[in-house]
Amino acid sequence: MNGVSAERRLAELGLELPPPPAPGGEYVAAKKVGRLLFLSGQGPMRNGVPTVVGQVGRDVSLEQGVEAARQATLNALAAIRAATGSLDNVEEIVQLRGFVNSAPGFDRQPQVMNGASKLLVSVFGEAGRHVRCALGTSSLPHNIPVELEMIVSLRQEFGAQASPAEDS
Amino acid sequence: MNGVSAERRLAELGLELPPPPAPGGEYVAAKKVGRLLFLSGQGPMRNGVPTVVGQVGRDVSLEQGVEAARQATLNALAAIRAATGSLDNVEEIVQLRGFVNSAPGFDRQPQVMNGASKLLVSVFGEAGRHVRCALGTSSLPHNIPVELEMIVSLRQEFGAQASPAEDS
Amino acid sequence: MNGVSAERRLAELGLELPPPPAPGGEYVAAKKVGRLLFLSGQGPMRNGVPTVVGQVGRDVSLEQGVEAARQATLNALAAIRAATGSLDNVEEIVQLRGFVNSAPGFDRQPQVMNGASKLLVSVFGEAGRHVRCALGTSSLPHNIPVELEMIVSLRQEFGAQASPAEDS
Repeated sequence: MNGVSAERRLAELGLELPPPPAPGGEYVAAKKVGRLLFLSGQGPMRNGVPTVVGQVGRDVSLEQGVEAARQATLNALAAIRAATGSLDNVEEIVQLRGFVNSAPGFDRQPQVMNGASKLLVSVFGEAGRHVRCALGTSSLPHNIPVELEMIVSLRQEFGAQASPAEDS
Repeated sequence: MNGVSAERRLAELGLELPPPPAPGGEYVAAKKVGRLLFLSGQGPMRNGVPTVVGQVGRDVSLEQGVEAARQATLNALAAIRAATGSLDNVEEIVQLRGFVNSAPGFDRQPQVMNGASKLLVSVFGEAGRHVRCALGTSSLPHNIPVELEMIVSLRQEFGAQASPAEDS
Repeated sequence: MNGVSAERRLAELGLELPPPPAPGGEYVAAKKVGRLLFLSGQGPMRNGVPTVVGQVGRDVSLEQGVEAARQATLNALAAIRAATGSLDNVEEIVQLRGFVNSAPGFDRQPQVMNGASKLLVSVFGEAGRHVRCALGTSSLPHNIPVELEMIVSLRQEFGAQASPAEDS
Protein backbone atom coordinates (compact mmCIF):
# COMPACT_ATOMS: atom_id res chain seq x y z
CA MET A 1 0.00 0.00 0.00
CA ASN A 2 3.03 2.28 0.09
CA GLY A 3 1.67 3.91 3.20
CA VAL A 4 -1.29 5.47 1.38
CA SER A 5 -4.74 4.75 2.73
CA ALA A 6 -7.10 2.99 0.33
CA GLU A 7 -10.04 4.32 2.30
CA ARG A 8 -8.72 7.85 1.82
CA ARG A 9 -8.17 7.33 -1.91
CA LEU A 10 -11.68 5.99 -2.24
CA ALA A 11 -13.01 9.13 -0.60
CA GLU A 12 -10.79 11.37 -2.73
CA LEU A 13 -12.20 9.67 -5.82
CA GLY A 14 -15.65 10.60 -4.59
CA LEU A 15 -16.66 6.96 -4.38
CA GLU A 16 -18.97 5.47 -1.79
CA LEU A 17 -19.34 1.77 -1.33
CA PRO A 18 -22.82 0.23 -1.52
CA PRO A 19 -24.20 -1.81 1.38
CA PRO A 20 -22.28 -5.09 1.53
CA PRO A 21 -23.81 -7.76 -0.71
CA ALA A 22 -26.03 -10.26 1.05
CA PRO A 23 -25.42 -13.78 -0.28
CA GLY A 24 -28.65 -15.53 -1.00
CA GLY A 25 -28.16 -18.92 0.52
CA GLU A 26 -25.68 -21.20 2.13
CA TYR A 27 -22.64 -19.22 1.12
CA VAL A 28 -20.83 -16.15 2.36
CA ALA A 29 -19.41 -13.06 0.68
CA ALA A 30 -15.84 -13.47 1.93
CA LYS A 31 -13.74 -16.10 3.64
CA LYS A 32 -10.26 -15.78 5.13
CA VAL A 33 -7.57 -18.45 5.18
CA GLY A 34 -4.30 -17.29 6.60
CA ARG A 35 -3.56 -13.99 4.89
CA LEU A 36 -5.71 -14.74 1.85
CA LEU A 37 -9.25 -13.43 1.62
CA PHE A 38 -11.41 -15.17 -0.97
CA LEU A 39 -14.46 -13.35 -2.31
CA SER A 40 -17.69 -14.66 -3.81
CA GLY A 41 -18.64 -13.74 -7.34
CA GLN A 42 -20.06 -10.24 -7.65
CA GLY A 43 -22.17 -8.60 -10.32
CA PRO A 44 -23.66 -5.17 -10.90
CA MET A 45 -26.34 -5.70 -8.27
CA ARG A 46 -27.94 -3.13 -5.98
CA ASN A 47 -30.21 -4.34 -3.21
CA GLY A 48 -30.32 -7.74 -4.84
CA VAL A 49 -31.44 -6.43 -8.22
CA PRO A 50 -29.24 -6.09 -11.33
CA THR A 51 -28.74 -2.51 -12.51
CA VAL A 52 -28.25 -3.77 -16.05
CA VAL A 53 -28.92 -7.10 -17.77
CA GLY A 54 -28.05 -8.77 -21.05
CA GLN A 55 -25.14 -9.77 -23.21
CA VAL A 56 -22.37 -7.31 -23.96
CA GLY A 57 -22.13 -6.70 -27.69
CA ARG A 58 -25.85 -7.09 -28.21
CA ASP A 59 -28.11 -5.92 -25.38
CA VAL A 60 -25.42 -4.06 -23.48
CA SER A 61 -22.81 -1.70 -24.97
CA LEU A 62 -19.12 -1.92 -24.27
CA GLU A 63 -19.38 1.24 -22.17
CA GLN A 64 -22.24 -0.24 -20.14
CA GLY A 65 -20.18 -3.38 -19.67
CA VAL A 66 -17.28 -1.35 -18.33
CA GLU A 67 -19.61 0.41 -15.92
CA ALA A 68 -21.07 -2.95 -14.82
CA ALA A 69 -17.54 -4.19 -14.07
CA ARG A 70 -16.96 -1.07 -11.96
CA GLN A 71 -20.16 -1.63 -10.02
CA ALA A 72 -19.31 -5.28 -9.42
CA THR A 73 -15.91 -4.17 -8.13
CA LEU A 74 -17.51 -1.73 -5.69
CA ASN A 75 -19.62 -4.61 -4.39
CA ALA A 76 -16.48 -6.68 -3.92
CA LEU A 77 -14.82 -3.82 -2.05
CA ALA A 78 -17.90 -3.53 0.16
CA ALA A 79 -17.57 -7.23 0.94
CA ILE A 80 -13.89 -6.75 1.82
CA ARG A 81 -14.67 -3.85 4.14
CA ALA A 82 -17.49 -5.78 5.79
CA ALA A 83 -15.25 -8.80 6.33
CA THR A 84 -12.16 -6.97 7.56
CA GLY A 85 -13.38 -3.63 8.89
CA SER A 86 -11.46 -1.45 6.45
CA LEU A 87 -9.97 -1.53 2.97
CA ASP A 88 -6.75 -0.48 4.67
CA ASN A 89 -6.37 -4.04 5.92
CA VAL A 90 -5.71 -5.10 2.32
CA GLU A 91 -2.07 -5.72 1.52
CA GLU A 92 -2.51 -6.44 -2.16
CA ILE A 93 -5.14 -7.30 -4.74
CA VAL A 94 -3.87 -10.70 -5.82
CA GLN A 95 -6.23 -11.98 -8.47
CA LEU A 96 -9.20 -10.78 -10.49
CA ARG A 97 -11.22 -13.13 -12.66
CA GLY A 98 -14.03 -11.76 -14.75
CA PHE A 99 -16.71 -13.47 -16.80
CA VAL A 100 -18.40 -11.33 -19.42
CA ASN A 101 -21.83 -12.39 -20.68
CA SER A 102 -20.94 -12.12 -24.35
CA ALA A 103 -22.94 -11.95 -27.55
CA PRO A 104 -21.72 -14.43 -30.17
CA GLY A 105 -18.55 -13.05 -31.70
CA PHE A 106 -17.90 -10.49 -28.96
CA ASP A 107 -14.25 -10.80 -27.99
CA ARG A 108 -13.40 -7.56 -26.18
CA GLN A 109 -13.70 -9.01 -22.67
CA PRO A 110 -10.37 -7.40 -21.63
CA GLN A 111 -11.75 -3.91 -22.34
CA VAL A 112 -14.78 -4.68 -20.18
CA MET A 113 -12.59 -5.93 -17.35
CA ASN A 114 -10.41 -2.85 -17.53
CA GLY A 115 -13.29 -1.11 -15.78
CA ALA A 116 -12.54 -3.26 -12.75
CA SER A 117 -8.75 -3.22 -13.05
CA LYS A 118 -8.47 0.55 -13.34
CA LEU A 119 -10.70 1.09 -10.35
CA LEU A 120 -8.59 -1.28 -8.24
CA VAL A 121 -5.38 0.55 -9.16
CA SER A 122 -7.04 3.90 -8.50
CA VAL A 123 -7.96 2.83 -5.01
CA PHE A 124 -4.98 0.67 -4.01
CA GLY A 125 -2.16 2.12 -6.11
CA GLU A 126 0.62 -0.28 -7.04
CA ALA A 127 -0.73 -2.78 -4.53
CA GLY A 128 -3.87 -2.90 -6.65
CA ARG A 129 -2.11 -4.46 -9.64
CA HIS A 130 -3.30 -8.03 -9.90
CA VAL A 131 -3.12 -11.09 -12.07
CA ARG A 132 -6.17 -11.28 -14.24
CA CYS A 133 -8.24 -13.64 -16.27
CA ALA A 134 -10.85 -12.12 -18.60
CA LEU A 135 -13.29 -14.65 -20.03
CA GLY A 136 -16.40 -14.73 -22.14
CA THR A 137 -19.43 -16.83 -21.45
CA SER A 138 -22.92 -17.29 -22.86
CA SER A 139 -24.97 -16.86 -19.69
CA LEU A 140 -24.70 -15.59 -16.15
CA PRO A 141 -27.00 -15.57 -13.12
CA HIS A 142 -29.92 -13.14 -13.41
CA ASN A 143 -28.65 -12.41 -16.92
CA ILE A 144 -26.09 -9.92 -15.55
CA PRO A 145 -23.49 -8.76 -18.07
CA VAL A 146 -20.45 -9.25 -15.82
CA GLU A 147 -19.52 -11.44 -12.87
CA LEU A 148 -16.14 -11.12 -11.19
CA GLU A 149 -14.33 -12.70 -8.28
CA MET A 150 -11.21 -11.74 -6.39
CA ILE A 151 -8.55 -12.97 -4.04
CA VAL A 152 -6.77 -10.39 -1.91
CA SER A 153 -3.99 -10.66 0.65
CA LEU A 154 -4.33 -9.02 4.06
CA ARG A 155 -1.72 -7.16 6.06
CA GLN A 156 0.25 -9.36 8.39
CA GLU A 157 -1.00 -7.48 11.44
CA PHE A 158 -4.55 -8.25 10.45
CA GLY A 159 -3.86 -11.88 9.68
CA ALA A 160 -2.44 -12.25 13.16
CA GLN A 161 -5.63 -11.18 14.87
CA ALA A 162 -7.29 -13.80 16.97
CA SER A 163 -10.72 -13.96 15.45
CA PRO A 164 -10.97 -12.33 12.05
CA ALA A 165 -14.42 -11.87 10.64
CA GLU A 166 -14.81 -14.37 7.89
CA ASP A 167 -18.14 -13.37 6.64
CA SER A 168 -19.97 -10.21 5.76
CA MET B 1 -16.13 -27.96 12.57
CA ASN B 2 -17.42 -27.07 16.04
CA GLY B 3 -16.31 -30.46 17.28
CA VAL B 4 -18.85 -32.34 15.15
CA SER B 5 -17.57 -35.06 12.85
CA ALA B 6 -18.26 -34.55 9.16
CA GLU B 7 -17.91 -38.27 8.61
CA ARG B 8 -20.59 -38.87 11.22
CA ARG B 9 -22.92 -36.27 9.71
CA LEU B 10 -22.46 -37.86 6.32
CA ALA B 11 -23.49 -41.21 7.75
CA GLU B 12 -26.42 -39.68 9.62
CA LEU B 13 -27.61 -38.18 6.34
CA GLY B 14 -27.54 -41.68 4.89
CA LEU B 15 -24.97 -40.66 2.30
CA GLU B 16 -22.21 -42.84 0.98
CA LEU B 17 -19.37 -41.50 -1.06
CA PRO B 18 -18.67 -43.02 -4.47
CA PRO B 19 -15.27 -44.48 -5.28
CA PRO B 20 -12.79 -41.59 -5.58
CA PRO B 21 -12.70 -40.14 -9.09
CA ALA B 22 -9.84 -41.34 -11.26
CA PRO B 23 -8.38 -38.47 -13.28
CA GLY B 24 -7.88 -39.46 -16.87
CA GLY B 25 -4.46 -38.16 -17.66
CA GLU B 26 -1.57 -36.19 -16.37
CA TYR B 27 -3.47 -34.56 -13.58
CA VAL B 28 -4.57 -35.50 -10.09
CA ALA B 29 -7.80 -35.20 -8.13
CA ALA B 30 -6.39 -33.17 -5.24
CA LYS B 31 -3.24 -31.30 -4.37
CA LYS B 32 -2.16 -29.84 -1.06
CA VAL B 33 -0.15 -26.67 -0.50
CA GLY B 34 0.30 -25.76 3.11
CA ARG B 35 -3.15 -25.99 4.65
CA LEU B 36 -4.99 -25.51 1.37
CA LEU B 37 -6.28 -28.48 -0.59
CA PHE B 38 -7.10 -27.74 -4.23
CA LEU B 39 -9.51 -30.06 -6.05
CA SER B 40 -9.89 -30.84 -9.73
CA GLY B 41 -13.14 -30.11 -11.50
CA GLN B 42 -15.85 -32.68 -10.78
CA GLY B 43 -19.02 -33.55 -12.60
CA PRO B 44 -21.89 -36.00 -12.08
CA MET B 45 -19.74 -38.96 -13.15
CA ARG B 46 -19.95 -42.52 -11.90
CA ASN B 47 -17.23 -44.94 -12.99
CA GLY B 48 -16.10 -42.48 -15.61
CA VAL B 49 -19.53 -42.13 -17.20
CA PRO B 50 -21.91 -39.16 -16.80
CA THR B 51 -25.16 -39.98 -15.04
CA VAL B 52 -26.86 -37.16 -16.91
CA VAL B 53 -25.91 -35.05 -19.93
CA GLY B 54 -27.10 -31.90 -21.65
CA GLN B 55 -27.83 -28.27 -21.03
CA VAL B 56 -29.87 -27.19 -18.04
CA GLY B 57 -32.99 -25.37 -19.20
CA ARG B 58 -33.35 -27.49 -22.32
CA ASP B 59 -32.20 -31.12 -22.06
CA VAL B 60 -31.94 -31.17 -18.30
CA SER B 61 -34.47 -29.77 -15.82
CA LEU B 62 -33.58 -27.48 -12.95
CA GLU B 63 -34.24 -30.35 -10.55
CA GLN B 64 -31.92 -32.64 -12.49
CA GLY B 65 -29.30 -29.91 -12.48
CA VAL B 66 -29.53 -29.61 -8.72
CA GLU B 67 -29.11 -33.37 -8.40
CA ALA B 68 -26.11 -33.27 -10.76
CA ALA B 69 -24.51 -30.61 -8.56
CA ARG B 70 -25.06 -32.88 -5.54
CA GLN B 71 -23.45 -35.81 -7.29
CA ALA B 72 -20.47 -33.71 -8.35
CA THR B 73 -20.10 -32.60 -4.75
CA LEU B 74 -20.08 -36.19 -3.53
CA ASN B 75 -17.29 -36.90 -6.01
CA ALA B 76 -15.34 -33.94 -4.64
CA LEU B 77 -15.85 -35.21 -1.11
CA ALA B 78 -14.61 -38.63 -2.19
CA ALA B 79 -11.48 -36.96 -3.58
CA ILE B 80 -10.96 -35.12 -0.30
CA ARG B 81 -11.28 -38.31 1.72
CA ALA B 82 -8.94 -40.17 -0.61
CA ALA B 83 -6.34 -37.39 -0.38
CA THR B 84 -6.52 -36.84 3.37
CA GLY B 85 -7.88 -40.05 4.87
CA SER B 86 -11.04 -38.54 6.34
CA LEU B 87 -13.44 -35.65 5.84
CA ASP B 88 -12.72 -34.83 9.47
CA ASN B 89 -9.36 -33.44 8.38
CA VAL B 90 -11.22 -30.58 6.72
CA GLU B 91 -11.15 -27.34 8.65
CA GLU B 92 -13.38 -25.34 6.32
CA ILE B 93 -14.83 -25.37 2.85
CA VAL B 94 -13.22 -22.22 1.46
CA GLN B 95 -14.44 -21.83 -2.08
CA LEU B 96 -16.90 -23.42 -4.47
CA ARG B 97 -17.01 -22.49 -8.14
CA GLY B 98 -19.63 -24.03 -10.37
CA PHE B 99 -20.13 -23.95 -14.10
CA VAL B 100 -23.60 -24.82 -15.34
CA ASN B 101 -23.99 -26.00 -18.93
CA SER B 102 -26.80 -23.60 -19.76
CA ALA B 103 -29.36 -23.40 -22.52
CA PRO B 104 -29.52 -19.95 -24.14
CA GLY B 105 -31.36 -17.64 -21.77
CA PHE B 106 -31.09 -19.91 -18.72
CA ASP B 107 -29.95 -17.75 -15.82
CA ARG B 108 -30.79 -19.74 -12.69
CA GLN B 109 -27.26 -21.03 -12.12
CA PRO B 110 -27.41 -20.09 -8.41
CA GLN B 111 -30.37 -22.41 -7.85
CA VAL B 112 -28.47 -25.25 -9.50
CA MET B 113 -25.42 -24.61 -7.35
CA ASN B 114 -27.53 -24.54 -4.20
CA GLY B 115 -27.59 -28.32 -4.58
CA ALA B 116 -23.87 -28.31 -3.85
CA SER B 117 -23.89 -25.56 -1.23
CA LYS B 118 -26.67 -27.09 0.84
CA LEU B 119 -24.97 -30.47 0.85
CA LEU B 120 -21.70 -28.93 2.04
CA VAL B 121 -23.43 -27.16 4.92
CA SER B 122 -25.35 -30.34 5.80
CA VAL B 123 -22.10 -32.26 6.11
CA PHE B 124 -19.73 -29.65 7.55
CA GLY B 125 -22.09 -27.33 9.44
CA GLU B 126 -20.96 -23.71 9.73
CA ALA B 127 -17.49 -24.70 8.52
CA GLY B 128 -19.14 -25.71 5.28
CA ARG B 129 -20.16 -22.15 4.39
CA HIS B 130 -17.98 -21.04 1.50
CA VAL B 131 -17.47 -18.25 -0.94
CA ARG B 132 -19.10 -19.12 -4.20
CA CYS B 133 -19.12 -18.30 -7.86
CA ALA B 134 -22.01 -19.64 -9.96
CA LEU B 135 -21.48 -19.31 -13.70
CA GLY B 136 -23.13 -20.33 -16.90
CA THR B 137 -21.37 -21.73 -19.92
CA SER B 138 -22.31 -23.14 -23.29
CA SER B 139 -20.43 -26.45 -23.15
CA LEU B 140 -18.69 -28.76 -20.71
CA PRO B 141 -16.63 -31.95 -21.03
CA HIS B 142 -18.67 -35.02 -21.97
CA ASN B 143 -21.65 -32.66 -22.19
CA ILE B 144 -22.18 -32.86 -18.43
CA PRO B 145 -24.67 -30.32 -17.03
CA VAL B 146 -22.50 -29.15 -14.12
CA GLU B 147 -18.81 -28.97 -13.31
CA LEU B 148 -17.59 -27.68 -9.98
CA GLU B 149 -14.29 -27.16 -8.24
CA MET B 150 -13.38 -26.47 -4.63
CA ILE B 151 -10.65 -25.26 -2.33
CA VAL B 152 -10.76 -26.44 1.27
CA SER B 153 -8.55 -25.72 4.25
CA LEU B 154 -7.20 -28.56 6.39
CA ARG B 155 -6.87 -28.75 10.14
CA GLN B 156 -3.56 -27.51 11.42
CA GLU B 157 -2.67 -30.89 12.87
CA PHE B 158 -3.08 -32.45 9.44
CA GLY B 159 -1.13 -29.75 7.68
CA ALA B 160 1.72 -30.36 10.06
CA GLN B 161 2.06 -33.99 9.09
CA ALA B 162 5.28 -34.92 7.39
CA SER B 163 4.07 -36.44 4.16
CA PRO B 164 0.46 -35.71 3.39
CA ALA B 165 -1.06 -37.57 0.51
CA GLU B 166 -1.42 -35.13 -2.31
CA ASP B 167 -3.21 -37.29 -4.76
CA SER B 168 -6.07 -39.70 -4.80
CA MET C 1 11.18 -31.65 -8.44
CA ASN C 2 13.02 -34.80 -7.39
CA GLY C 3 16.32 -33.01 -7.88
CA VAL C 4 15.88 -32.74 -11.66
CA SER C 5 16.16 -29.31 -13.21
CA ALA C 6 13.07 -28.10 -15.06
CA GLU C 7 15.25 -25.70 -17.04
CA ARG C 8 17.41 -28.61 -18.13
CA ARG C 9 14.40 -30.72 -19.10
CA LEU C 10 13.02 -27.85 -21.11
CA ALA C 11 16.30 -27.63 -23.01
CA GLU C 12 16.43 -31.40 -23.48
CA LEU C 13 12.95 -31.24 -24.99
CA GLY C 14 14.29 -28.69 -27.45
CA LEU C 15 11.84 -26.07 -26.19
CA GLU C 16 12.56 -22.39 -25.95
CA LEU C 17 10.29 -20.02 -24.08
CA PRO C 18 8.90 -17.01 -25.88
CA PRO C 19 9.49 -13.50 -24.53
CA PRO C 20 7.46 -13.07 -21.37
CA PRO C 21 3.92 -11.90 -22.08
CA ALA C 22 3.32 -8.19 -21.59
CA PRO C 23 -0.04 -7.57 -19.91
CA GLY C 24 -1.96 -4.87 -21.68
CA GLY C 25 -3.17 -2.71 -18.87
CA GLU C 26 -3.40 -2.37 -15.15
CA TYR C 27 -2.60 -5.97 -14.41
CA VAL C 28 0.52 -8.08 -14.17
CA ALA C 29 1.54 -11.49 -15.48
CA ALA C 30 2.36 -13.05 -12.11
CA LYS C 31 1.91 -12.26 -8.45
CA LYS C 32 3.40 -13.98 -5.43
CA VAL C 33 1.75 -14.46 -2.04
CA GLY C 34 3.78 -16.50 0.37
CA ARG C 35 4.87 -19.56 -1.56
CA LEU C 36 2.02 -19.35 -4.09
CA LEU C 37 2.55 -17.72 -7.47
CA PHE C 38 -0.66 -16.77 -9.27
CA LEU C 39 -0.54 -16.31 -13.04
CA SER C 40 -2.71 -14.27 -15.37
CA GLY C 41 -4.69 -15.96 -18.10
CA GLN C 42 -2.57 -16.91 -21.10
CA GLY C 43 -3.49 -17.72 -24.68
CA PRO C 44 -1.63 -18.74 -27.82
CA MET C 45 -0.26 -15.24 -28.32
CA ARG C 46 3.06 -14.22 -29.83
CA ASN C 47 4.08 -10.58 -29.62
CA GLY C 48 0.56 -9.66 -28.65
CA VAL C 49 -1.05 -11.37 -31.63
CA PRO C 50 -2.93 -14.71 -31.59
CA THR C 51 -1.27 -17.47 -33.61
CA VAL C 52 -4.68 -19.06 -34.15
CA VAL C 53 -8.26 -17.87 -33.66
CA GLY C 54 -11.71 -19.38 -33.61
CA GLN C 55 -13.80 -22.02 -31.90
CA VAL C 56 -12.47 -25.53 -31.48
CA GLY C 57 -14.73 -27.98 -33.27
CA ARG C 58 -15.60 -25.53 -36.02
CA ASP C 59 -12.87 -23.06 -37.04
CA VAL C 60 -10.07 -24.82 -35.21
CA SER C 61 -9.36 -28.56 -35.21
CA LEU C 62 -8.78 -30.61 -32.08
CA GLU C 63 -5.11 -30.87 -33.01
CA GLN C 64 -4.82 -27.12 -33.42
CA GLY C 65 -6.54 -26.67 -30.08
CA VAL C 66 -4.01 -28.96 -28.42
CA GLU C 67 -1.17 -26.96 -29.98
CA ALA C 68 -2.79 -23.71 -28.81
CA ALA C 69 -2.90 -25.09 -25.26
CA ARG C 70 0.81 -25.92 -25.54
CA GLN C 71 1.64 -22.41 -26.71
CA ALA C 72 -0.38 -20.85 -23.93
CA THR C 73 1.50 -23.03 -21.46
CA LEU C 74 4.85 -21.86 -22.83
CA ASN C 75 3.68 -18.29 -22.29
CA ALA C 76 2.77 -19.15 -18.71
CA LEU C 77 6.19 -20.71 -18.17
CA ALA C 78 7.82 -17.58 -19.60
CA ALA C 79 5.85 -15.53 -17.08
CA ILE C 80 7.03 -17.81 -14.26
CA ARG C 81 10.64 -17.48 -15.31
CA ALA C 82 10.36 -13.71 -15.64
CA ALA C 83 8.79 -13.44 -12.19
CA THR C 84 11.13 -15.80 -10.36
CA GLY C 85 14.34 -15.93 -12.40
CA SER C 86 14.17 -19.63 -13.21
CA LEU C 87 11.69 -22.47 -13.62
CA ASP C 88 13.82 -24.28 -11.06
CA ASN C 89 12.30 -22.10 -8.38
CA VAL C 90 9.01 -23.93 -8.94
CA GLU C 91 8.22 -26.52 -6.30
CA GLU C 92 5.05 -27.83 -7.87
CA ILE C 93 2.43 -27.00 -10.45
CA VAL C 94 -0.63 -26.74 -8.24
CA GLN C 95 -3.55 -25.91 -10.46
CA LEU C 96 -4.36 -25.56 -14.14
CA ARG C 97 -7.67 -24.17 -15.35
CA GLY C 98 -8.40 -24.05 -19.03
CA PHE C 99 -11.22 -22.48 -21.00
CA VAL C 100 -11.74 -23.80 -24.49
CA ASN C 101 -13.58 -21.59 -26.99
CA SER C 102 -15.98 -24.30 -28.10
CA ALA C 103 -18.30 -24.72 -31.06
CA PRO C 104 -21.84 -25.71 -30.04
CA GLY C 105 -21.79 -29.39 -29.11
CA PHE C 106 -18.01 -29.65 -28.76
CA ASP C 107 -17.29 -31.47 -25.52
CA ARG C 108 -13.70 -32.69 -25.80
CA GLN C 109 -12.19 -29.91 -23.71
CA PRO C 110 -10.13 -32.42 -21.68
CA GLN C 111 -8.31 -33.59 -24.82
CA VAL C 112 -7.47 -29.99 -25.67
CA MET C 113 -6.16 -29.33 -22.18
CA ASN C 114 -4.05 -32.48 -22.29
CA GLY C 115 -1.74 -30.44 -24.52
CA ALA C 116 -0.99 -28.26 -21.52
CA SER C 117 -0.97 -31.02 -18.91
CA LYS C 118 1.44 -33.26 -20.80
CA LEU C 119 3.85 -30.40 -21.38
CA LEU C 120 3.85 -29.54 -17.67
CA VAL C 121 4.64 -33.11 -16.70
CA SER C 122 7.33 -33.31 -19.39
CA VAL C 123 9.06 -30.28 -17.93
CA PHE C 124 8.46 -30.70 -14.20
CA GLY C 125 8.13 -34.48 -13.83
CA GLU C 126 5.95 -35.67 -10.95
CA ALA C 127 5.96 -32.15 -9.53
CA GLY C 128 4.17 -31.09 -12.68
CA ARG C 129 1.03 -33.10 -11.92
CA HIS C 130 -1.68 -30.64 -11.03
CA VAL C 131 -5.34 -30.39 -10.23
CA ARG C 132 -7.22 -29.38 -13.31
CA CYS C 133 -10.45 -27.86 -14.49
CA ALA C 134 -11.25 -28.10 -18.22
CA LEU C 135 -14.15 -25.94 -19.31
CA GLY C 136 -15.90 -24.91 -22.46
CA THR C 137 -17.05 -21.42 -23.27
CA SER C 138 -18.60 -19.57 -26.19
CA SER C 139 -16.13 -16.70 -26.52
CA LEU C 140 -12.67 -15.64 -25.43
CA PRO C 141 -10.61 -12.44 -25.79
CA HIS C 142 -9.32 -11.83 -29.31
CA ASN C 143 -11.28 -14.94 -30.30
CA ILE C 144 -8.43 -17.18 -29.14
CA PRO C 145 -9.30 -20.89 -28.96
CA VAL C 146 -7.82 -21.51 -25.50
CA GLU C 147 -7.14 -19.48 -22.37
CA LEU C 148 -5.51 -21.04 -19.33
CA GLU C 149 -4.40 -19.93 -15.92
CA MET C 150 -2.19 -21.52 -13.31
CA ILE C 151 -1.18 -21.46 -9.67
CA VAL C 152 2.25 -22.83 -8.79
CA SER C 153 4.08 -23.21 -5.50
CA LEU C 154 7.65 -21.99 -5.10
CA ARG C 155 10.52 -23.62 -3.31
CA GLN C 156 10.82 -22.63 0.30
CA GLU C 157 14.24 -21.09 -0.23
CA PHE C 158 12.75 -18.82 -2.86
CA GLY C 159 9.75 -17.90 -0.79
CA ALA C 160 12.08 -16.85 2.00
CA GLN C 161 13.90 -14.30 -0.14
CA ALA C 162 13.49 -10.72 0.92
CA SER C 163 12.10 -9.11 -2.20
CA PRO C 164 10.74 -11.60 -4.71
CA ALA C 165 9.85 -10.23 -8.10
CA GLU C 166 6.11 -10.20 -8.28
CA ASP C 167 5.71 -9.07 -11.81
CA SER C 168 7.14 -9.85 -15.18
